Amino acid sequence: MTAVAGTSVEALLGDLAAIVGEANVLTDPGLTEGYRRDMQPLAGAGTPLAVVRPSSTAEVAAVVKACAGAGVPIVPRGAGSGLTGAANAVDGAVTISFTRMNAKPVIDRDARLAIVQPGVVTLDLKKAAEEQGLFYAPDPTSNDWCTIGGNLANGSGGPCGSKYGVTADSVLGLEVVLAGGEILRTGRTTLKDVSGYDLNRLFVGSEGTLGLITEATLSLQKKPPAPRTAVAAFPTPEAAGRSVTGFLATGHRLSLLEIMDGPCIGAVERYLGSPILGDDAPAPGAVLYAQSDAGHSRELEAFEELCLGNGAVFTYATDDPSEGELFMQYWHSLEPALEAMGTWILHEVTVLPRHISRLIGKAAEIAEDTGLFIGVHGHAADGTLHPMIVFNPGNEDERGRARAAYDLVLQAAIGLGGPVSGEHGIGRMKARHLGEEIGETGLAVHRAIKKALDPQGILNPGSMFQPAG
Amino acid sequence: MTAVAGTSVEALLGDLAAIVGEANVLTDPGLTEGYRRDMQPLAGAGTPLAVVRPSSTAEVAAVVKACAGAGVPIVPRGAGSGLTGAANAVDGAVTISFTRMNAKPVIDRDARLAIVQPGVVTLDLKKAAEEQGLFYAPDPTSNDWCTIGGNLANGSGGPCGSKYGVTADSVLGLEVVLAGGEILRTGRTTLKDVSGYDLNRLFVGSEGTLGLITEATLSLQKKPPAPRTAVAAFPTPEAAGRSVTGFLATGHRLSLLEIMDGPCIGAVERYLGSPILGDDAPAPGAVLYAQSDAGHSRELEAFEELCLGNGAVFTYATDDPSEGELFMQYWHSLEPALEAMGTWILHEVTVLPRHISRLIGKAAEIAEDTGLFIGVHGHAADGTLHPMIVFNPGNEDERGRARAAYDLVLQAAIGLGGPVSGEHGIGRMKARHLGEEIGETGLAVHRAIKKALDPQGILNPGSMFQPAG
Repeated sequence: MTAVAGTSVEALLGDLAAIVGEANVLTDPGLTEGYRRDMQPLAGAGTPLAVVRPSSTAEVAAVVKACAGAGVPIVPRGAGSGLTGAANAVDGAVTISFTRMNAKPVIDRDARLAIVQPGVVTLDLKKAAEEQGLFYAPDPTSNDWCTIGGNLANGSGGPCGSKYGVTADSVLGLEVVLAGGEILRTGRTTLKDVSGYDLNRLFVGSEGTLGLITEATLSLQKKPPAPRTAVAAFPTPEAAGRSVTGFLATGHRLSLLEIMDGPCIGAVERYLGSPILGDDAPAPGAVLYAQSDAGHSRELEAFEELCLGNGAVFTYATDDPSEGELFMQYWHSLEPALEAMGTWILHEVTVLPRHISRLIGKAAEIAEDTGLFIGVHGHAADGTLHPMIVFNPGNEDERGRARAAYDLVLQAAIGLGGPVSGEHGIGRMKARHLGEEIGETGLAVHRAIKKALDPQGILNPGSMFQPAG
Repeated sequence: MTAVAGTSVEALLGDLAAIVGEANVLTDPGLTEGYRRDMQPLAGAGTPLAVVRPSSTAEVAAVVKACAGAGVPIVPRGAGSGLTGAANAVDGAVTISFTRMNAKPVIDRDARLAIVQPGVVTLDLKKAAEEQGLFYAPDPTSNDWCTIGGNLANGSGGPCGSKYGVTADSVLGLEVVLAGGEILRTGRTTLKDVSGYDLNRLFVGSEGTLGLITEATLSLQKKPPAPRTAVAAFPTPEAAGRSVTGFLATGHRLSLLEIMDGPCIGAVERYLGSPILGDDAPAPGAVLYAQSDAGHSRELEAFEELCLGNGAVFTYATDDPSEGELFMQYWHSLEPALEAMGTWILHEVTVLPRHISRLIGKAAEIAEDTGLFIGVHGHAADGTLHPMIVFNPGNEDERGRARAAYDLVLQAAIGLGGPVSGEHGIGRMKARHLGEEIGETGLAVHRAIKKALDPQGILNPGSMFQPAG
């Protein structure tokens, strides 16, 4: 994908300025630099021809038509909170930033749905729903700054997904600008719709490689009561893992069930300067955080019982939301704690819950072998784990070891039967691995669908998979 | 789609017999007659070249390769319980019947999943899950004879879908034979997977037009407690409709919430010979049936209160499962009651719950205009309604009026913002209407995907949409 010749570039930039206004076509490297990368420090990033900031579907369609006419590829971009490099700039491509398409969501209280533009920050949608006594469930951890468009493009999850569903589960309908600039509407506002192929699900998680989502109709739920919180500490990850599978077998569905391993706990303890179990207790090998919003106490009682029966050295549950938040402080402090240690990579692998402790064990071995800090935390109820790799990006050798550690952790998860991604997507970081999961036939099907909907190959080239083998 | 020339037909039949055994290639019209239609009496049906009954994925792949090589189209078929003609025979095409692929489902109790062949009867999967204390939720009304392959191909729903999800929601992974005979595996056994495009959802509900599902990995849930049952009778459908929307706003999620309108109740009363409210009460204009498996009584109390507040003339709730079944007898007796009146068409339209009573009103007008019996029942919680049209198929004029009534009811639902199908699919019966919902751009996207995965157009031609405009 090389940029078009000089004169055509100028003509294209002129066309783009005519569509979105000159102020919304950024070409100054000082301005475009901030649009080159997402939050994945190891993925490659190019230099965009321009960053274009449309304000409406019609503008997006016109921008896509202009780029398609000039044969210039397009990279769609939300807030840049992604962790796979899917929104990273491509040399000579136009990055379309959706952050200006952030009108206040329209809530239909009776039909329990929201009509949302892609640039709306996820937390703002949650708040708009709450104002109407409703609940937008998906909760990516970056929900205070990530945007709905990115959540949709990546099929994002979050801690409460195992009870309330992930982003994809909330999608009733989409408006999508296709590779030729046509505007497609998918889905419906009713609760069920099996008319034709499930195009909602085809575009959700497609990382902008098949079309650009310019509006979404998302289902809302009744707001659940404030959660109760419990914490349990274990001598080993195995004891925590047994408690997770034992608890899942009870059929209770917690609104949050997070695990942190020993290295993560240690990092937070050092950062906060206070041991999680007090000064005299040995450091735990794993901690579970549980929240229940079922409105009755049985769930957390069952949780505490199960943890104690599986060797927990400490459990505590509270009805008091502020005390609950105090417990969760260790969990919320993980990213700043790692920030203090160096640059962190938030990895993502997904395994069956019964394999959580094995994955934590593998991560510890890989940490040993590569000489890097790796701590694992994640969503225990659905087996989505986030190994955190800390490294010094200025040190070329450490950078190489970090990439090696990333791949080794991923191989370990695949070896345990997990997918290449359960929550963050493939992007540019995992593209080389996709074939390991879906095989040659799977890749051929992906390429056929891609070619059918984007014959020029201009939509987010290089994310997810390479068009040709 | 015309059959290949005589000699090639013989060669193909020979090849097919070599693959599945001569006993499993049916060509005698006396034998193939039973494979020509599903349960939709108004959809057209052709005469198959042969009915082939493979017993394994390898055989399906070989059959598809042989047909593709001969340029002969294929119609996949489960039990034939469909209501859209999607499995109806096409002149000169090979019908592949999946009923022999019905090995006992393999249940992984700990991972809560089942690996299932397409010919397994849905109820048999439910029973296999129950034996392990688990629950396969999707419950198409025909679950005692429909098969999983048909449920998947049509994206089937059922009464408990609004609480526990429809068939599509339970799919973790698929094995699919593609149009060229290649075998594709989609999805994973973990709870989450966003690796690549959501091919599970692309094939589910695609009515065999993109590939043939030969195995599915389906998620199971903890078996809920036995339900409590309540019934409420209303003077008008409006009062019932207000109760439904009022109840949904409470956030409670019943495991069943069905509505029956006055004509349906009347038909059942005549059939059973006993008025639902006793001899002296006026016949109700609508009845709601509710079941709660939440394990505590608040849901049905809230339901009864809401119904009484919205004008119910009668409500009753019971903890006793056999008394509950007694209530439900009126609901279960609807099909035999209509059977006694003539041939019935089980229509399906989906509207927002707030429009249920308007759709019932429209159906009454259409019954008046066409001089036919139309009674409406359905899943009130998600707005999927089943208007039942009764007619005499031997009477050409009545047949025409029945088709007109079918289309008018569908137009009424589309006019209320509903999709062409919310639960039963498109098939041959609604194919001409799909474009009314998804538009020319939507059709173009469908055709592009179809061409990408089935360039010869041999998979279930004529179902869902026509390849060319």
